Amino acid sequence: MRVSRLMLNTLRDVPAEADIISHQLLVRGGYVKRLTGGIYAYMPLLWKVLKKITSIVEEELSTKGCLQTLLPQLQPSEIWERSGRWKSYTKGEGIMFSLKDRQGKELGLGPTHEEVITQIISQTIHSYKQLPINIFQIQTKFRDEIRPRFGLMRSREFIMKDAYSFHANENDLQSTYSDMRNAYENIFTKCGLDFVCVDADSGAIGGAASQEFMVTAESGEDLILISSDSKYGANQEKAVSIIEEGKLLEPNKPSIIKTPNQKTIDELCNYNDFHPSQIVKVLAYLATCDDNKKYPVLVSIRGDQEINDIKLSNKISQELKQNVLDIRIISNEDMQKQGISNIPFGFIGPDLSDNLLAQSKAWEKKFIRIADNSAKDLKSFICGNNIKDEHKIFYNWNLINTVQMICDIRKAKPGDRCIHDKTQKLQECRGIEIGHIFQLGTKYSKSLNATFTNEKGVEDHFWMGCYGIGISRLAQAAVEQNHDDLGIIWPTSIAPFTVIIIIANIKNNDQKCLAEDIYQKLIQDRVDVLLDDRDERAGIKFKDADLIGIPWRIVAGREASSGLVELHNRKTKITELLDLNSVFKKLSEEFNTEKL
Amino acid sequence: MRVSRLMLNTLRDVPAEADIISHQLLVRGGYVKRLTGGIYAYMPLLWKVLKKITSIVEEELSTKGCLQTLLPQLQPSEIWERSGRWKSYTKGEGIMFSLKDRQGKELGLGPTHEEVITQIISQTIHSYKQLPINIFQIQTKFRDEIRPRFGLMRSREFIMKDAYSFHANENDLQSTYSDMRNAYENIFTKCGLDFVCVDADSGAIGGAASQEFMVTAESGEDLILISSDSKYGANQEKAVSIIEEGKLLEPNKPSIIKTPNQKTIDELCNYNDFHPSQIVKVLAYLATCDDNKKYPVLVSIRGDQEINDIKLSNKISQELKQNVLDIRIISNEDMQKQGISNIPFGFIGPDLSDNLLAQSKAWEKKFIRIADNSAKDLKSFICGNNIKDEHKIFYNWNLINTVQMICDIRKAKPGDRCIHDKTQKLQECRGIEIGHIFQLGTKYSKSLNATFTNEKGVEDHFWMGCYGIGISRLAQAAVEQNHDDLGIIWPTSIAPFTVIIIIANIKNNDQKCLAEDIYQKLIQDRVDVLLDDRDERAGIKFKDADLIGIPWRIVAGREASSGLVELHNRKTKITELLDLNSVFKKLSEEFNTEKL
Repeated sequence: MRVSRLMLNTLRDVPAEADIISHQLLVRGGYVKRLTGGIYAYMPLLWKVLKKITSIVEEELSTKGCLQTLLPQLQPSEIWERSGRWKSYTKGEGIMFSLKDRQGKELGLGPTHEEVITQIISQTIHSYKQLPINIFQIQTKFRDEIRPRFGLMRSREFIMKDAYSFHANENDLQSTYSDMRNAYENIFTKCGLDFVCVDADSGAIGGAASQEFMVTAESGEDLILISSDSKYGANQEKAVSIIEEGKLLEPNKPSIIKTPNQKTIDELCNYNDFHPSQIVKVLAYLATCDDNKKYPVLVSIRGDQEINDIKLSNKISQELKQNVLDIRIISNEDMQKQGISNIPFGFIGPDLSDNLLAQSKAWEKKFIRIADNSAKDLKSFICGNNIKDEHKIFYNWNLINTVQMICDIRKAKPGDRCIHDKTQKLQECRGIEIGHIFQLGTKYSKSLNATFTNEKGVEDHFWMGCYGIGISRLAQAAVEQNHDDLGIIWPTSIAPFTVIIIIANIKNNDQKCLAEDIYQKLIQDRVDVLLDDRDERAGIKFKDADLIGIPWRIVAGREASSGLVELHNRKTKITELLDLNSVFKKLSEEFNTEKL
Repeated sequence: MRVSRLMLNTLRDVPAEADIISHQLLVRGGYVKRLTGGIYAYMPLLWKVLKKITSIVEEELSTKGCLQTLLPQLQPSEIWERSGRWKSYTKGEGIMFSLKDRQGKELGLGPTHEEVITQIISQTIHSYKQLPINIFQIQTKFRDEIRPRFGLMRSREFIMKDAYSFHANENDLQSTYSDMRNAYENIFTKCGLDFVCVDADSGAIGGAASQEFMVTAESGEDLILISSDSKYGANQEKAVSIIEEGKLLEPNKPSIIKTPNQKTIDELCNYNDFHPSQIVKVLAYLATCDDNKKYPVLVSIRGDQEINDIKLSNKISQELKQNVLDIRIISNEDMQKQGISNIPFGFIGPDLSDNLLAQSKAWEKKFIRIADNSAKDLKSFICGNNIKDEHKIFYNWNLINTVQMICDIRKAKPGDRCIHDKTQKLQECRGIEIGHIFQLGTKYSKSLNATFTNEKGVEDHFWMGCYGIGISRLAQAAVEQNHDDLGIIWPTSIAPFTVIIIIANIKNNDQKCLAEDIYQKLIQDRVDVLLDDRDERAGIKFKDADLIGIPWRIVAGREASSGLVELHNRKTKITELLDLNSVFKKLSEEFNTEKL
């Protein structure tokens, strides 16, 4: 391809619309054009990058026996109603665009395809003999983002690879899940990315296990915690760590102590010489679920620990078999609206009476009681006495006359020791999520009643997995990770062109002929090569080549008459003056090494 | 690929949802699954077909120097407002889906991309030196069809290749247009289709010249007229032909004749021994335009000819520089609503007075007067006298005291003689439109004010062309043209697999081993091969292979122990018993010949 025909349109100035470097560089290099907020045209240079990523993905998934398909982008509301997701996806903070067709029927613009593929597979696969099936598509997806930003990182229209697997049992699902994890590692490695795989929360997609693949970058929207040996990594929402032993409260006779105005852990410790780890902190939350009900929740955790709202929210969802749409701490105002006046904030214990809720107008009348492992592990503790200015001391769980659900709802923090190896500590870093794999289990097959005949001849629900890669986001993440002051430095495997040949002075015939020779030879060798044949100053051409980030640059300049050209590596910045044979030899060595 | 892993799901019965054979076969072969009306999932077999078509298109367009891109599917209403198409595309019979985002902004789901690409090119291309540009994408498009039907033929979600070219002048546009016509011929030939290229109406896209590529098929939705030598073809809406000379009405003294109750051409001829070709037939139409006004139109045509409503509508659009949204003959009821009582239907002449419209409440007050060439050519004619039961005779246009626009608004009919060669006659056939090329001219660049600096340093509007191929429709059109009682017969170049190997009896080890050997060898030779390894009766496997339409079938059956297999050609139905070497030789010869 000749640059004169490429519609190249580079900018020297940093565009006002772009906050992070990768977005700035993609705009400046003419890779993207903004149509409206969060919606971009992928220009020819970017399209070439996307196509290379796509090929890597297709090749790897096809090796794993995945079938390629293309599912509709317009999805009828009915199947989303059946899975129970229509409302949470289209109303309020829901991110699905929806519309009505000329018959007045509601359709959603697919952000994901669990419903559609589950329905199709249940119409197609009838016997365990046809399982497992792993089917994928590469497609534009839509999200009506509350705050679209960072270019292709969080756009309203983006390219995804989404795969869905169907299995006769959980073991088989786990085996494919592990295959896919492996495929993802190969894909991201081939794309030339530094990435980590971390345990993740399944979010609105649901299901049991899930992991995210993160390109580490300071501008990343996700906070992740990684062990120093990199063997453990998790999204902050999901991370676990060792609960450090606190200061023991020697068991003694349980009693009540007066604690006037000592509402916070700090105040309680300061006045009484307690240690936070000796206290059970109790917080009252209100969870709004998609059954339209509001559930009061009482959460106990050790005084020196913090609650992870996502873990909490998941636990409640799981208990109620409802999606939690919103969760927040109950305020005085909330209580007044409900006609409840006597929750003694600051002095609540895990056994706060349900009677208090009897007056509530719109809430459920009983507390959901959850205790974090850190609280439950305490043999002797201090906690609120449910009466203003009073705490219990030397209490234990046998004396608390209410049933608690015990689980992990605790926030892991940087510096915490790791569960896989006590000598390792968690470190915090930021990441850009480029892939996500889920073990969905039977969530969708049950809600959509998708079944097959199992080995025993009995109808059974499919076990499902799903696996996403943000193709367009990956392209930008590669830029975020690979650039310098001059511009983008594409990993060779996904660069729009591998080599750019620059004719320093277009009016010099030696330079022109030599460049043309090299160009033809490289095309013949199936190298993706660009020839800058523009009548522009050499400096401008160099700047453009650096900005758009082509891995190798060949310059036909002053030494062209002696048959010599400069070969420049965009990443190492090493320039060599070489004859043509040496150039071809060097490039072919480099490409072969990279392919190994 | 092994059939056991292919998720094959064939049906023996004709599905109720499908009217035409190609749709039935695609459903029965498991190529498509219907999600809801006019919306289909493309299953793995179809995806392979689509990918092959896509590759042929991409390769051919890239040879022509076209750049590939991907434009947003969501398009802000603003640019459609600027081009003046938002209303006609989203309201009433408009086919664009539209929605509001969470900020309440209106977005359309792209059925076409003239607006978007014009805006982007005007931001990117500033000088004539960068022209011409020809840029394309392959993408899912949306149409909120009034009556989706025939599977992928008229679906609400479909895959299009759309290309847009930008030029400094009309000559350059014409040259690219002709290149693209040539590229289209190559593409459809490579896809193995019988097709014709016909002159077409530009419809809502607008512009000067346009041609459609039609796959001829009885089930086609379009009526086309082709000359017996195939040198002329046109969509019925656009077709022209020679106006046969009628029966001369010898000039004589103009006079008025009484014609009581002779309202129709037939009645007039029967009572007076006139010939229809001696009469000027005048019809009153009402055109509703997108400026919200209603224009009365008076159309004159020779009595033996018929009016082509599309030509008429285009002529009015052109005159008024407005889109005609609707055109129909004025009824008595229409008149009464307007307070007009005295249009003497059956006796109208080309000079019907505008005074009649003075009372009209919502119509424009003057007739647009249009005369077809066939009427205007008459030297002496009969026409209505604008008074009940009276006609004029021996009149000529000099005596008609109103200005007529003269043009071709006449319907060409099968049997008419051709303008390119009087000895050729028009024949009627039906076609499926798979491609459409347009010379848009400056329609969009002017409405969106997209300019570049021309050779003289002056700002000028781009000349534009646009070029579409219905990729998913093409796949089905190929089936409509290539099938028999047993199923689909794919052209080899776009078949999902080129060869299918059937193990007649999966329990026979000789057959199994031989089939496996052939399978591995063909994979090695990069042949797209399918191995039917299912534990099913041979008859079922044969039926499936025929139904899904794989061009070549190799059967490892009874003679497998002697190293012989059957090679069967799906199209010719010729079966040969051959040893492996002969099979490979034969196939490689066939593939090479096809590639030539």
